[in-house]
Amino acid sequence: MNKSSLIIGRQPLIEAIQAGRAIDKILFQKNISGESIGQIRQLAKENNIPIQQVPPEKLFSLTRANHQGVIAFAALVAYMNLQQVVDHVVSKGEVPLFVILDGVTDVRNIGGIARTAVCCGAQAIIIPDKGVGALNEEAIKSSAGALEKINICRVNSLMKAVDELHLNGIKVFASEMTAKPLLHELNFKEPCCVVMGSEDKGVFPPLMKICDEKFKIPMAGKFESLNVSVATGIILYEAMKQRM
Amino acid sequence: MNKSSLIIGRQPLIEAIQAGRAIDKILFQKNISGESIGQIRQLAKENNIPIQQVPPEKLFSLTRANHQGVIAFAALVAYMNLQQVVDHVVSKGEVPLFVILDGVTDVRNIGGIARTAVCCGAQAIIIPDKGVGALNEEAIKSSAGALEKINICRVNSLMKAVDELHLNGIKVFASEMTAKPLLHELNFKEPCCVVMGSEDKGVFPPLMKICDEKFKIPMAGKFESLNVSVATGIILYEAMKQRM
Repeated sequence: MNKSSLIIGRQPLIEAIQAGRAIDKILFQKNISGESIGQIRQLAKENNIPIQQVPPEKLFSLTRANHQGVIAFAALVAYMNLQQVVDHVVSKGEVPLFVILDGVTDVRNIGGIARTAVCCGAQAIIIPDKGVGALNEEAIKSSAGALEKINICRVNSLMKAVDELHLNGIKVFASEMTAKPLLHELNFKEPCCVVMGSEDKGVFPPLMKICDEKFKIPMAGKFESLNVSVATGIILYEAMKQRM
Repeated sequence: MNKSSLIIGRQPLIEAIQAGRAIDKILFQKNISGESIGQIRQLAKENNIPIQQVPPEKLFSLTRANHQGVIAFAALVAYMNLQQVVDHVVSKGEVPLFVILDGVTDVRNIGGIARTAVCCGAQAIIIPDKGVGALNEEAIKSSAGALEKINICRVNSLMKAVDELHLNGIKVFASEMTAKPLLHELNFKEPCCVVMGSEDKGVFPPLMKICDEKFKIPMAGKFESLNVSVATGIILYEAMKQRM
């Protein structure tokens, strides 16, 4: 993280957020208080920006400037509001094809998936605001620039994001090892979103429960262990092919 | 590379090769000579094992034992003979589905591709004996164990390998950005092999020339930049789907 992406001090941070600048994370010195701190908390909540409490040494290791107990990391990737993305996609006459990443935490994996998603015509990737690192230079490199060509929605809750998709008439599909329907039997021509889980844990069960359809990527052998990037590529290829 | 995978000295190496042990690479001390050295050269040639000339310091950095100017790296993955693999696959009643990797040099990428290949029912991966690093522990880890479940053929010349595939009635397909036919228009039900080129250079032009059919993975947008692992996954998924 280079220093130019740091936002140092209370008022500069308030102004940056109010100006719409994307922020990855805010660091608060432990036990900090004051009126502007309350204001930052409120702005962070409204904009889904995670706040982390850290010891003073951590802040001093980042800057020698007068940080007033507050340092934020400006985001390299601009995060978009999910409803606005849906509206924008529909208004362009496109059929939504989105991807939810649940538990895919390696930012290089996210970059790689963004690359595939753009190739296959997906318009947005939805990630949770917790557990995922900042989409840094490494992520942008892994995406071959695709992270700048696709909408990234960072949401407070993936469950709520699915509710929001449902309200917009977007179906949500999830891959499950034990599902009966095969990938190509799904209808990807309708507005839809695919949930990709982590390789070890799969999709979070309550999230899986509210998905509209479960499917399985067919496997030729007993060895069933596709890498999440490759699995996403296969799913989005199938979706693209159906839409062609 | 742990020490147990080193083969140290002239006679031990001759015996290891004659016993059929897979060798990744032989290091010769510069300007070395002698009868057994001639024998090793001959065995290396017959078994497609690359020989590298190195200064004495390199050998001493690997071992304190009396190496007689010769150290070899035993392979973690057993390399198979292409014709024997073809015979074995056909005798099992399977239709060959192979992958040639031309210029895919990152062994973690090769591991990842092996993983996808096993999932999609491909039986062999063909790699050149030059320019590709040893399939080490990192490659095996990236493959999630798949490198031990698929035949790896290391060949002296990919051009000759294609000739050999042709003699066995196996068609060779290659992906080319400018090709007209789309991936799913190819017939993957027949015995076939897919050539994957490197991301930056693509397939070596003379190799592309002797391929039977060129195809293109369809792209939804103008952004055409699939990662080689993802592209291989999409192609092998299409092949598997046709064969189901």
